Amino acid sequence: MNEQLLHQGRFLRLVSKDGYECASRTNASGIVVVVALLGLEPGARPAILLIEQHRPPVGGPVIELPAGLAGDIAGAEDEPLEEAARRELLEETGFAARSVVLATRAAPSPGMVTEIYSIFLATGLERVGAGGGVESESITTFEVPLDDVETFLEDASSRGRHVALAVWAGLAIARRWVAQHGRTP
Amino acid sequence: MNEQLLHQGRFLRLVSKDGYECASRTNASGIVVVVALLGLEPGARPAILLIEQHRPPVGGPVIELPAGLAGDIAGAEDEPLEEAARRELLEETGFAARSVVLATRAAPSPGMVTEIYSIFLATGLERVGAGGGVESESITTFEVPLDDVETFLEDASSRGRHVALAVWAGLAIARRWVAQHGRTP
Repeated sequence: MNEQLLHQGRFLRLVSKDGYECASRTNASGIVVVVALLGLEPGARPAILLIEQHRPPVGGPVIELPAGLAGDIAGAEDEPLEEAARRELLEETGFAARSVVLATRAAPSPGMVTEIYSIFLATGLERVGAGGGVESESITTFEVPLDDVETFLEDASSRGRHVALAVWAGLAIARRWVAQHGRTP
Repeated sequence: MNEQLLHQGRFLRLVSKDGYECASRTNASGIVVVVALLGLEPGARPAILLIEQHRPPVGGPVIELPAGLAGDIAGAEDEPLEEAARRELLEETGFAARSVVLATRAAPSPGMVTEIYSIFLATGLERVGAGGGVESESITTFEVPLDDVETFLEDASSRGRHVALAVWAGLAIARRWVAQHGRTP
């Protein structure tokens, strides 16, 4: 295959693979996405953690799953994906998880982007921090019952929020997990 | 906002928005994704159309929903999104749909890409063509019962296929539609 660098930016690069143009990140060894479940004890309502943050590419606030890059921190370039998932969950939402397991891998935009999400399922959650993200991030966290996610997203859309495709994917993964494992964390 | 063009490719461009790097398509007015449902008649098993095609950015075959660009055809730059959804469904799978409605909009990769998917729900399907895509595309279509999608994806992964995030999202959207509308198309 003939791969040609078209532009090397600080965070993204553009390459041509046999004439097919693709975008990549320059500063990450992986990208982790977290389906974090609460309300799994008997009598409670299973719920998922969603976040909201401003995203310059789409020019506004986006409802997303907790997520982030692995290997983008100087000195921790070989951070394992599971550890990155735990770190991002804690930084963004303030929750620590007893169990974090890889649920599946998926390509968010395989027609133009090289990256593959590693989607983790987190249970046994305990709030141990404030969340909100690091440095310039300003992240709001929502605990949304699985039965109410569609209504929550419709309401968010009507208030001008974008919705990340991963939220819909996380909903399918979360509902399947609850159907298979019941409500015991 | 200070927007600076970093590189203008043939199909993709890289821009900096106040120092935040983003990738965009150069040749499309929108991107349409189709959740196409079959088996909605009484006694049948509800199923979703999935496709498989090679994707250079991820370097291999990907299981996806039928999808494509709107406004990328010379002379039809103002093609409505619903028409593009019908055209892509037909080109890729050979199915025409009696009903095509916008289900939701979602950002596949809001941390690095500007694009927003318009996700359509197609019902009343009838096979009228061979499918397979246009020109260089070589697309295989699968009719997968909604109850079997996770097993299908696990099997595809074990055979080296990537899975597009949109498939998981489409599964949540399809199951909700069937739960709300029953099995009557």
